Amino acid sequence: MTKHDSSTAPEFTRSDTRISELLDITHEIADLSALGSLADWDQNTAMPDGAAETRGYQLASLQGVLHERWTSRRLGELLDALSKPVQQSSYSDADRGLVYQARRGYDRATKLPRKLVEEIARVQAASFSAWRRARENNDFASFAPLLSRTVALQREVADRLGFVETRYDALLDEYEPGMTARKLEALFAPIRETSRSLLQRIEASGNTIDASCLEGNFAEAQQIALGERILRNMGYDFTRGQIAVSPHPFTTSFGAPFDVRVTTRTNKRYIQESLMAVIHEGGHALYEQGSSPTLARTPVVGGASMGAHESQSRLWENEIGRSSAYWKGQFSVVQELFPERYAGVDAETFARALNKVQPGLIRIEADEVTYNLHIIVRFELEKALVNGDVAIETLPSLWNAKYREYLGIEPPSDTKGVLQDIHWTSGFGYFPSYTLGNLYAAQIFSTLQSVFPDFDARLASGNTSFVLQWLQQHMYSMGAIYQPEDLIKRVTNEAPDPSYFSRYLTAKFEKIYHLA
Amino acid sequence: MTKHDSSTAPEFTRSDTRISELLDITHEIADLSALGSLADWDQNTAMPDGAAETRGYQLASLQGVLHERWTSRRLGELLDALSKPVQQSSYSDADRGLVYQARRGYDRATKLPRKLVEEIARVQAASFSAWRRARENNDFASFAPLLSRTVALQREVADRLGFVETRYDALLDEYEPGMTARKLEALFAPIRETSRSLLQRIEASGNTIDASCLEGNFAEAQQIALGERILRNMGYDFTRGQIAVSPHPFTTSFGAPFDVRVTTRTNKRYIQESLMAVIHEGGHALYEQGSSPTLARTPVVGGASMGAHESQSRLWENEIGRSSAYWKGQFSVVQELFPERYAGVDAETFARALNKVQPGLIRIEADEVTYNLHIIVRFELEKALVNGDVAIETLPSLWNAKYREYLGIEPPSDTKGVLQDIHWTSGFGYFPSYTLGNLYAAQIFSTLQSVFPDFDARLASGNTSFVLQWLQQHMYSMGAIYQPEDLIKRVTNEAPDPSYFSRYLTAKFEKIYHLA
Repeated sequence: MTKHDSSTAPEFTRSDTRISELLDITHEIADLSALGSLADWDQNTAMPDGAAETRGYQLASLQGVLHERWTSRRLGELLDALSKPVQQSSYSDADRGLVYQARRGYDRATKLPRKLVEEIARVQAASFSAWRRARENNDFASFAPLLSRTVALQREVADRLGFVETRYDALLDEYEPGMTARKLEALFAPIRETSRSLLQRIEASGNTIDASCLEGNFAEAQQIALGERILRNMGYDFTRGQIAVSPHPFTTSFGAPFDVRVTTRTNKRYIQESLMAVIHEGGHALYEQGSSPTLARTPVVGGASMGAHESQSRLWENEIGRSSAYWKGQFSVVQELFPERYAGVDAETFARALNKVQPGLIRIEADEVTYNLHIIVRFELEKALVNGDVAIETLPSLWNAKYREYLGIEPPSDTKGVLQDIHWTSGFGYFPSYTLGNLYAAQIFSTLQSVFPDFDARLASGNTSFVLQWLQQHMYSMGAIYQPEDLIKRVTNEAPDPSYFSRYLTAKFEKIYHLA
Repeated sequence: MTKHDSSTAPEFTRSDTRISELLDITHEIADLSALGSLADWDQNTAMPDGAAETRGYQLASLQGVLHERWTSRRLGELLDALSKPVQQSSYSDADRGLVYQARRGYDRATKLPRKLVEEIARVQAASFSAWRRARENNDFASFAPLLSRTVALQREVADRLGFVETRYDALLDEYEPGMTARKLEALFAPIRETSRSLLQRIEASGNTIDASCLEGNFAEAQQIALGERILRNMGYDFTRGQIAVSPHPFTTSFGAPFDVRVTTRTNKRYIQESLMAVIHEGGHALYEQGSSPTLARTPVVGGASMGAHESQSRLWENEIGRSSAYWKGQFSVVQELFPERYAGVDAETFARALNKVQPGLIRIEADEVTYNLHIIVRFELEKALVNGDVAIETLPSLWNAKYREYLGIEPPSDTKGVLQDIHWTSGFGYFPSYTLGNLYAAQIFSTLQSVFPDFDARLASGNTSFVLQWLQQHMYSMGAIYQPEDLIKRVTNEAPDPSYFSRYLTAKFEKIYHLA
């Protein structure tokens, strides 16, 4: 159970009538948005196929109402009236965050006409169904027309929101305020170099990891039960959450911090597919459940940005969840759920297997060394799609060519290639958040290790609540009241710096692979 | 798969600009209402406890938007402008139904202030949680304050909607247009007499039915699988539906006819609890899935009234689902799913067991002879509650006294007594629909037997599609464009007449119990 430290809880200045009125408006928007998220969750976990079109209408109508609320004249007046005063010290950081995030919503809504927003919702619903079928049938051509429509709509969004250099920048900014393709290219270049050089050194060493202990015959129900145990041990609160199965794992909130749900998918043969997805989504979910309840039903509840969000999923999945210290504390749960398979395996061997480096086709199964290369493929392709540099039909061959170039392997089917991710059914600009998240995660992990010199020993005890408590207090409880760069500074006392990740990755894998 | 006969599909006069504008307004309302139904479904099947309060806010905000839409000046103007012209023959029955139902919604919304509607939604969410806990813990006292609040709110609703004789009439009218307590008392009196006299004759005969073939050890997953098979055989379309588990079985639509879901609950020891619930909910669901797609996203999609709705759940559950002809055609499915238990049982024995008459405590497990006595208990108590004739605290003892009087048995706990049904967490006036449904069902069944002289033989073949097709064409496809009394006349060529039920019940049980 997450505890909220009331002494540090961010508070709005509710006695101020303008803040109070702004809260009333944003409460209603948050409530209605939550119902949209519930509809998305249902669409991914339960909805029958025949309902796709009618669900599209429902989401479009909801978007229409939200658009109306976000563009209300009164909201604009309040934001104008508050923009200067809220900078004064008599207002709180929560107030400033609220005004900042509400302004973002207002600006976005006033720049995008309702008809466009409704059309995007309709196309997204149709695209999701088409993608799911295309993925099942390895049939990119049947998905292409909807992807093409999504590209056209996202280009229109970019044109209306405005951008300095390229249309893609406008879409990036949606997920990571202030981010541009040029900045990302600069941040990603060293990551790509580190990853490729490390991969070459590992391959040149001839050293390998035996990951056969991850293979077996794992019943789905037992895997879900294992996921529940692992989530519970992480501190995920099931009285405010739930786990379900969907084709692509995800986390969603319908009113954080009180209803935050995760999904996973299972693979009968490989235990790590669902296990690591659960830890990844668990990281997202802890962040959402960790928002101070004082922020509930406002635009500043939940994560500060998608990069900040991915930093938590990746921190729990990789820095923590792929460490031998963590498995020293948790492996007995795996043994309990799968006694026959794991009686003769130890935690060290299991953790080591989770770090096997092997260029593969599926992003969410990728090791830490190659993961960012998967992202860079997607980043380069979606940037080109949005900026109009490539034709939709060429996408599968471009995808395959990039996999050949960066990872040295080529997908045997589009199902295992360009159709593997759900993301492009809704838009573009999200993928870079994963690698950005890796950068932030390594930096926050370095801070955690400084704060807790006995970090590994504590992790190995099996009780990880010290990690959650620290993150809760210094990051999660703040929700989205700070912008991501500011938040990282507050958490780590330093601006975002990609060298933390390079050092973390190199040191970890030099040790695991016994590199010189 | 339900087929829609396009030659009889009701159509709106979309070329009329006022009808077209009215459709635009009601489409948005239907879309948003569907999201509210989805939230209810989730609350009953999946939502974590900790989300109850925040879900209450969400539903309240949605109700607020719906209230705003239903009270829009433009809607009022359109309804005024259409009220006379729509009676002309140049308009369709669908147009007239649309204007009638939209007028009901508009009148209701303009008479009930937004604050009241929001408060009702909040109390309903809290009441549901309290009821679920109270039911688990046999603790009526912990539920009483919320029930008391619901009574007060429903009395206020009645006062604002207006009524001729008693407040309870105003609530009845919500579910069955034009119905009053006085009319119901007249309709129910012969039913009560028939039920009690038949019960006395059965008990006096000394004849009994051996229902032990319904007992066993039935795994939940197999029961759900059986439910799926039975629903599929009834013609329920899983590409537009789904089955889930909830404490109280129900059917709901999020955009009929395209997304219509049912729930059930299972009892490990008695197969009929889930099985008959599935057939009952399946009847509701067929009705909803059977609406003509031309009516989608309007207030005339779905059932004509709650009584009309219950007529279909009861027709499928009782007239069809408790007949030996039906089980001659379906019993092999039960044998397939539970081969060990049912290898030595035949369809006739199974069907006979489903008709065992035995006064019991639980309404949804009741036989056809005693069922309406359960309803009459609830009808009398809720009428008294709403009209202010009884105090909340006395409800459990009044409930128990009525069970002693009408059924000759007394609940050993409130969990098996006054706390057994979900209905009073949301309001009053629904229960009589069940008995009204029984009256309509018997009358429609009589029509079906006239239309198909070989009815039993066809049922026994295992293919029930002739029933669904006929109902689909003559009733389901019309949705709610006709008021219930008019609908029954169209389907059966006669006004509602309770003697059909009395004759049906008496003839059936005289035969089964070999009465003189």
